[in-house]
Amino acid sequence: MGSSFGDLFRISTFGESHGGGVGVIIDGCPPRLPLDLGQIQADLDRRRPGQSRITTPRKEEDRVEILSGLLDGVTLGTPIAMVVRNRDQRPGDYQEMQVAFRPSHADATYQAKYGIQARSGGGRASARETIGRVAAGAVAKQLLARTHGTEVIAWVRRIHTIEAVIDPASVSLEAVEANIVRCPDADTAERMIERIEAIGREGDSCGGVIECLVRRPPVGLGMPVFDKLEADLAKAVMSLPATKGFEIGSGFGGTLLRGSEHNDAFLPSDDGRLRTATNNSGGIQGGISNGEEIQLRVAFKPTATIRKEQQTIDASGAATTLAAKGRHDPCVLPRAVPMVEAMVALVLADHLLRQQAQCSLW
Amino acid sequence: MGSSFGDLFRISTFGESHGGGVGVIIDGCPPRLPLDLGQIQADLDRRRPGQSRITTPRKEEDRVEILSGLLDGVTLGTPIAMVVRNRDQRPGDYQEMQVAFRPSHADATYQAKYGIQARSGGGRASARETIGRVAAGAVAKQLLARTHGTEVIAWVRRIHTIEAVIDPASVSLEAVEANIVRCPDADTAERMIERIEAIGREGDSCGGVIECLVRRPPVGLGMPVFDKLEADLAKAVMSLPATKGFEIGSGFGGTLLRGSEHNDAFLPSDDGRLRTATNNSGGIQGGISNGEEIQLRVAFKPTATIRKEQQTIDASGAATTLAAKGRHDPCVLPRAVPMVEAMVALVLADHLLRQQAQCSLW
Amino acid sequence: MGSSFGDLFRISTFGESHGGGVGVIIDGCPPRLPLDLGQIQADLDRRRPGQSRITTPRKEEDRVEILSGLLDGVTLGTPIAMVVRNRDQRPGDYQEMQVAFRPSHADATYQAKYGIQARSGGGRASARETIGRVAAGAVAKQLLARTHGTEVIAWVRRIHTIEAVIDPASVSLEAVEANIVRCPDADTAERMIERIEAIGREGDSCGGVIECLVRRPPVGLGMPVFDKLEADLAKAVMSLPATKGFEIGSGFGGTLLRGSEHNDAFLPSDDGRLRTATNNSGGIQGGISNGEEIQLRVAFKPTATIRKEQQTIDASGAATTLAAKGRHDPCVLPRAVPMVEAMVALVLADHLLRQQAQCSLW
Amino acid sequence: MGSSFGDLFRISTFGESHGGGVGVIIDGCPPRLPLDLGQIQADLDRRRPGQSRITTPRKEEDRVEILSGLLDGVTLGTPIAMVVRNRDQRPGDYQEMQVAFRPSHADATYQAKYGIQARSGGGRASARETIGRVAAGAVAKQLLARTHGTEVIAWVRRIHTIEAVIDPASVSLEAVEANIVRCPDADTAERMIERIEAIGREGDSCGGVIECLVRRPPVGLGMPVFDKLEADLAKAVMSLPATKGFEIGSGFGGTLLRGSEHNDAFLPSDDGRLRTATNNSGGIQGGISNGEEIQLRVAFKPTATIRKEQQTIDASGAATTLAAKGRHDPCVLPRAVPMVEAMVALVLADHLLRQQAQCSLW
Repeated sequence: MGSSFGDLFRISTFGESHGGGVGVIIDGCPPRLPLDLGQIQADLDRRRPGQSRITTPRKEEDRVEILSGLLDGVTLGTPIAMVVRNRDQRPGDYQEMQVAFRPSHADATYQAKYGIQARSGGGRASARETIGRVAAGAVAKQLLARTHGTEVIAWVRRIHTIEAVIDPASVSLEAVEANIVRCPDADTAERMIERIEAIGREGDSCGGVIECLVRRPPVGLGMPVFDKLEADLAKAVMSLPATKGFEIGSGFGGTLLRGSEHNDAFLPSDDGRLRTATNNSGGIQGGISNGEEIQLRVAFKPTATIRKEQQTIDASGAATTLAAKGRHDPCVLPRAVPMVEAMVALVLADHLLRQQAQCSLW
Repeated sequence: MGSSFGDLFRISTFGESHGGGVGVIIDGCPPRLPLDLGQIQADLDRRRPGQSRITTPRKEEDRVEILSGLLDGVTLGTPIAMVVRNRDQRPGDYQEMQVAFRPSHADATYQAKYGIQARSGGGRASARETIGRVAAGAVAKQLLARTHGTEVIAWVRRIHTIEAVIDPASVSLEAVEANIVRCPDADTAERMIERIEAIGREGDSCGGVIECLVRRPPVGLGMPVFDKLEADLAKAVMSLPATKGFEIGSGFGGTLLRGSEHNDAFLPSDDGRLRTATNNSGGIQGGISNGEEIQLRVAFKPTATIRKEQQTIDASGAATTLAAKGRHDPCVLPRAVPMVEAMVALVLADHLLRQQAQCSLW
Repeated sequence: MGSSFGDLFRISTFGESHGGGVGVIIDGCPPRLPLDLGQIQADLDRRRPGQSRITTPRKEEDRVEILSGLLDGVTLGTPIAMVVRNRDQRPGDYQEMQVAFRPSHADATYQAKYGIQARSGGGRASARETIGRVAAGAVAKQLLARTHGTEVIAWVRRIHTIEAVIDPASVSLEAVEANIVRCPDADTAERMIERIEAIGREGDSCGGVIECLVRRPPVGLGMPVFDKLEADLAKAVMSLPATKGFEIGSGFGGTLLRGSEHNDAFLPSDDGRLRTATNNSGGIQGGISNGEEIQLRVAFKPTATIRKEQQTIDASGAATTLAAKGRHDPCVLPRAVPMVEAMVALVLADHLLRQQAQCSLW
Repeated sequence: MGSSFGDLFRISTFGESHGGGVGVIIDGCPPRLPLDLGQIQADLDRRRPGQSRITTPRKEEDRVEILSGLLDGVTLGTPIAMVVRNRDQRPGDYQEMQVAFRPSHADATYQAKYGIQARSGGGRASARETIGRVAAGAVAKQLLARTHGTEVIAWVRRIHTIEAVIDPASVSLEAVEANIVRCPDADTAERMIERIEAIGREGDSCGGVIECLVRRPPVGLGMPVFDKLEADLAKAVMSLPATKGFEIGSGFGGTLLRGSEHNDAFLPSDDGRLRTATNNSGGIQGGISNGEEIQLRVAFKPTATIRKEQQTIDASGAATTLAAKGRHDPCVLPRAVPMVEAMVALVLADHLLRQQAQCSLW
């Protein structure tokens, strides 16, 4: 329970950080979709540790193997199973954490819930679990690109107190990937990198905000009531590790406006397509996509595992201190960018099939 | 699709604002739970229009009728069906909206998705749909109170630019209900009411922020990976009409802290219960409740339907203007307080049963 | 849990036999489907008690009221809620059963499971629960007729030891409805009716077999592996009260054949449509409909509630005897015919949407 | 869609017969269950080809690898992923079938549904898909044994026209495994084996009936209405390849009895446990287990792939003939015995958790 996502384009992930491997099954992908496996691997490479000097130096190659669901690179409509073997395990790095619960990490709550856990490497709470999400998200992206030319792109908007000034309309994947912090504002990116390095040197960590944009989304996705598109997007990104907040369109800032300021006036249209003068709605109205760009933001807290010494308890409840020795990211955001894209793409792919099911028979 | 919520404590709502009635079925409620029907009606009364001078003057009595699932006020374990008949319909109030799409409302997207809609009153997008949520949430609250003495309480934290200073530890239901804006800070509440009235007089509307606290939550609720407790809470509240953002614990503000500042140190404990020195986690770590109070905030945009004239289009795409004539709330927050409580309670009740299913056999 | 059926064309029923009412919500019905409400009521009339001298003389009018989901008789795509109020309750008829558990009925197991039950009238185990299924099935039939001209028709094949000889190709709804036992073989039908009356006069009951045929089914419905079409059909009809067995195509008899006798040879075809020389497959191969007629049979046991005195126990476990006094059907099959049709139509409608979701994007 | 089974003890299988591998994920297994991996492999060995002279001579070792979800052989409560690599592929054996659709096999319907397929080896329609079911079923068996001492045991009751006379009470796993056809009636087993060999030598195939018994089942499993225990059991076993019919308890034969003959009289009881004088109900009443032994039977058709020449068509619809050259089972029943046990155990494990969720809080 809890390791599957989506109703029709449905993924199920498995794997602890330090077991035999991690992976994902996609069930419900349409048949006859040619898959670019290189794009799947490319997104995994954006996610993997050791990719730059501001991520953990752990070396994980993360080569994906596809076990089923494809024939000559084309989907069969049957489950697509993708596996990444675990390597480069250093259980020793985690030994002190088997004695002390890491503050604000999952150690203590897993123990309280299950009475057992794979402490080495964080078990299912490891960022390694997101490999399956990113691989499946890369398939979802290709489905959306094929049917609607949809593009899902995310970037770092803020690191700690440093916020970039970004015109979403001008952001390209190339600009995002042009620097290791994945912020398309090059000058600010340099300052962000310096901040991460400075905080990391102190054995501390920092968080920030990731922004995501969906260009050319299908119209009509989302359901009234509980499965509103923004509700499913919120769940999707808030299921990523270390998230603390979610905004769609105008977000919390929008609550400072009056209705007459916040409402997005509809523009006259000849072709039946909805167009709005502003986009405080973030592309979604009444829970349903209106065709304008979908815009959302996600807050990521500072990494919980730090080298600085902290007060905590051991499994018996006794006071102790902990200074983590593992190779941990001082800031998760650069690697979280493809995770956000993946979760957003998965929601859209699922709702695309749901919309197709109900509203395309005649 | 889209009108059910929850996996085990599962609710399904139905009903348009101006049809025969609205209601909800709860499937999966444990048997032999004595229900206080007065508490269900009391929460519906907190939600209903016409309750004060800052809500729409529409008079809807919203008397709930329970059709099934109870024997002498005790649950049978079978579906509990609750219905509220529709009354006091004034379709005329909505006639102009059948010609012009209301900006930032669901009119246009429903039409794009379904090619048909119950325009009168907003159909499923009407706040009237939330009657079923609030009634079901009142049952969930009683389940949680029975098993863990859990209390779910929400209040208005900010209206437009006016923010209350509130110590969550001191908030009581009585203090929330002591004024018509449902802000437990009495002085600020007065200013909030004045602001809503002033903006309403201008034919405009405003939004704000609702905060919710869960006292004595069960420990161990939530699943690793996709069904993290904060993810399901985010979906739950972001499925309410007019929501634009969600925060758990430290939220967006927490991203400005360093890890050493943000981490919640565990306190020594004799009884196996987890206790933390601070609660930036908002009661949830690794997606699982740790027993500390759950704290969350929800952003509500200004009401979309306003009396001020706005630019928009009609169903043919031609430009037109619209100045709504209906009796609409200038601010949804006072009535949204019990809705937030209901959605939070529903998530907790569902996860309580999921936890019971997997982790209580031995 | 347990009161919903279907993934995309999803129904949820509610209601005890002797509470405020029974009903159903359909979620996921495509929008813009004109509904013939007369056909819904007609199927309910085929199901209701008191319709003939071989059914229980209880008079239940069973007038359906549609609370939501329609606009001028056309579906909105939102939940369709249908309610039938309970009337003509005679709780006194069931009083003796509140003391003694009826053998082979649900009284004892409900008590064991829930520790409480609505004994009066059988609660959820009452045939009255099937009202919601039949009403929803009538909507599913109209959806299937609209998209593929599909017809779902069932009839009584055997009553007790009396089996009809029926050529499925020649059966019409008129022939089925031409007699009160719903067997299209008129001569055998007379003997069946006599048998039911004779057994009923003795205070006893009998069972039999219902056969169902689907003409012009959509091709390609059903999923490999767990959701094979015959698997979902089996579950659907085996969820009806009093069922003991299910056969698709050749059924148990087919196991007496060799592969060379049982295999259905494919016939040459110009139009890409699959045609087979025989139909031992019952229209389904590899779990997927091939376009030939779907044929299935369902075994119904003799009614458990009889006037004859039986050995049983009371709630304390002590021995007692029971001779039921209520107005019960001596044979459920005539009224079960529309129930089987409904369940089969619901499975097909659901799989139609699932097929549309995955396989119609390009 | 269609490759997952169960609500709470939920399995998802993947893999084509001739791809990289096949496997299963179990999500929802309770934590802290010690798993005997030898028992999992033992059930896979009962399922694998090449185990005796009456099964296909294909040699598949089917060694299971567990990738996640265990710590030192004990379940973590997280997804258990099990993979079996594919070996000994002889695609050449299937080449003729890539031209001609095998009658009564899945070739034609997969093509009609998906427009593409992994023809080599049958894709998802291969019996190889059942590896994941059997492995997961072996885990479910251990869960049931642990909590209730439940035993799930199946055997061959009939092969073609040869029916064994079996007293279920006396059947042991040893007796079932004492011969290669898995019929605990040793004398009849010999005749069954001769029949299979004789029919196989003719290039033909045969079917039969498997019977399954559940000893010491938990009481109270199953839901009223749609998820009745017998309905979910019917779906479970009817999702196995080659099944044509299902019976619970008295089955079709029970329809020949009168109510007074068929009803199972309750026996007086001191301990609150339900006991019945007969068991025509097959251990289930009102959709809920009463604690008596659960008994069911499944009809398996003769294997579709035979060496005898058959009339069929190719993908263009043109007439052709086909005489299969692969190494196929002349009779699937001996290998299907552990598959039936697995599916029954999976249903019970799932309903055990569902019952625990709803009915064990107080």
